[in-house]
Amino acid sequence: MTASFKRIVLASRPAAHVTPDNFRLETVPLPQPAEGEVLVRVHYLSLDPYMRGRMIESRSSYAQPQKLDETMIGGTAGVIEVSRNPKFAVGDTVLGTFGWQEYGISDGRGLMKVDTRAIPISAYLGPVGMPGVTAWYGLNRICAPKPGETVLVSAASGAVGSVVGQLAKAAGCRAVGIAGGPDKCHYVTSELGFDACIDHREHAEVQSMAKAIRAAAPKGVDGLFENVGGIGLDGALACMNPFGRVAVCGLIAGYEGTSIPIYNVFTLVAMRLTVRGFIVSDHLDVWPQALAELGRGVAEGKIRYRETVAEGLAAAPEAFIGMLKGRNFGKQLVKLA
Amino acid sequence: MTASFKRIVLASRPAAHVTPDNFRLETVPLPQPAEGEVLVRVHYLSLDPYMRGRMIESRSSYAQPQKLDETMIGGTAGVIEVSRNPKFAVGDTVLGTFGWQEYGISDGRGLMKVDTRAIPISAYLGPVGMPGVTAWYGLNRICAPKPGETVLVSAASGAVGSVVGQLAKAAGCRAVGIAGGPDKCHYVTSELGFDACIDHREHAEVQSMAKAIRAAAPKGVDGLFENVGGIGLDGALACMNPFGRVAVCGLIAGYEGTSIPIYNVFTLVAMRLTVRGFIVSDHLDVWPQALAELGRGVAEGKIRYRETVAEGLAAAPEAFIGMLKGRNFGKQLVKLA
Repeated sequence: MTASFKRIVLASRPAAHVTPDNFRLETVPLPQPAEGEVLVRVHYLSLDPYMRGRMIESRSSYAQPQKLDETMIGGTAGVIEVSRNPKFAVGDTVLGTFGWQEYGISDGRGLMKVDTRAIPISAYLGPVGMPGVTAWYGLNRICAPKPGETVLVSAASGAVGSVVGQLAKAAGCRAVGIAGGPDKCHYVTSELGFDACIDHREHAEVQSMAKAIRAAAPKGVDGLFENVGGIGLDGALACMNPFGRVAVCGLIAGYEGTSIPIYNVFTLVAMRLTVRGFIVSDHLDVWPQALAELGRGVAEGKIRYRETVAEGLAAAPEAFIGMLKGRNFGKQLVKLA
Repeated sequence: MTASFKRIVLASRPAAHVTPDNFRLETVPLPQPAEGEVLVRVHYLSLDPYMRGRMIESRSSYAQPQKLDETMIGGTAGVIEVSRNPKFAVGDTVLGTFGWQEYGISDGRGLMKVDTRAIPISAYLGPVGMPGVTAWYGLNRICAPKPGETVLVSAASGAVGSVVGQLAKAAGCRAVGIAGGPDKCHYVTSELGFDACIDHREHAEVQSMAKAIRAAAPKGVDGLFENVGGIGLDGALACMNPFGRVAVCGLIAGYEGTSIPIYNVFTLVAMRLTVRGFIVSDHLDVWPQALAELGRGVAEGKIRYRETVAEGLAAAPEAFIGMLKGRNFGKQLVKLA
């Protein structure tokens, strides 16, 4: 055990693009757990697009902005190193939200013990964690596709999108993805089993994107799971079937700078669409069911996933910036131990 | 009875703005009803924004475009002049969809007899007709406000918006309108009983509009009934409360030319909004209940409304063009008899 550990704090708020100097790596003394507390060594840090939103002063009350000079928020998977809480034993694997740091202290609230015999620890930050439940909720509760319908998902190779498409296929739907580049598209169809995948880099305009979507979804789109926004979203809106459902999970294309408008607005009325934005933490009631299904899928190899793993805490800022640009392939993690 | 009558056909499709020469007034021979048919003299023609969408070649299959050289579509209220159908007597008042013409022949299908003792005939084209049911459906089934919540409605003095606000008030909500000009705003608050009304002509930018909405809706907006789009919609989106509901009934601001984009897209996620476009004719199941409630409200004087009545069929094109520009005040009708 070490007497100090490293953490990364938010040093400044990004103007348009996030830059490495928005973060500061610090070495701080290692605290000792008090009676009832545990010390957790963080093994994996989850990097997720929502963090980008927290880096700015919130325009609204929906989420607290990340405070300056405090440890960057984030989901973590780790192992109990010292326990003064009878509910946890040294060696237990626990999920938590310690953020961008190597160690964390907890009184046990917010920690969840997980079983890593059939499911790798890192999967609990991906398909069997928040991203997986996000996919599950948006697909089942918003897109709510019937067998034979078509589901379109953007960022299809990503932590959320990959699960959306696989769940849609398992539900008897046609699954169409949008991803960036031929490698990701190939992975989406050949490894994840989507019926088709569109490379958004080949479509710089809405009309071109819409044409590609129509070709990949000849019966139109019934459920759209939107992670990106911009041209892909407008193209998809042009291909929606009457009474289509759009789950708006994220709009990462607009996170760096001004958000990207929606142009195909009238289709909301013409196609009588339902568009719902959601945040998975509002729906804690579905987590147990969703995690049980997702865990079974991963344990049985039916839900496949990919990870991009940065090594060491110091690599987190660049990995995060890369993720915002789509440089990751699958779930972006930082391995700390 | 006359041996000929007048009708207006679509002569050409509008490029950007509708112009009078998109229409052509024709005199045609008066047909005689066959066995089982009735001849209806049209007293009122309803002019509605949806007609603008039908004038162009449809991009989608959701609605048939108005055919060139055929009578312009539209809802009508009229009186049976000749009956060879035992279900209808001469003098019966009937609603129908004869379009822009002085007479119509029907076998009775699609005709609905109405009682004009307590409710004026023209009201069946307004608050006790399609616009009223549109208001009822969007408010009750999409905005679904709870008592104490705030409902915002654009085009608040119009045929639909005026009913939305009055139903919202009756449901115990704060009702805020957006309308064009001080006269309409004064009418909305003083005669229709809305709590506040914003003159959109005073707000050329989204931020200014949002500030005005915040002042008029200090607790935020829970239900938005959108008839217009553009700056009002973006301003409203900036003021939505978490889990707010947006009923998109129409987007008249974008009907003339390119549709206006939505800029405040991220608020969909941040506020977890549900946005639903709808067309009231998809929901025939609610019409009986809605019309019963609306008819009671009008008969008892609890639902107030205003009409702008153009005189004579030849005045229909200018009245329609004026309506698209917001020159009407309340329901736009054309009185033919």
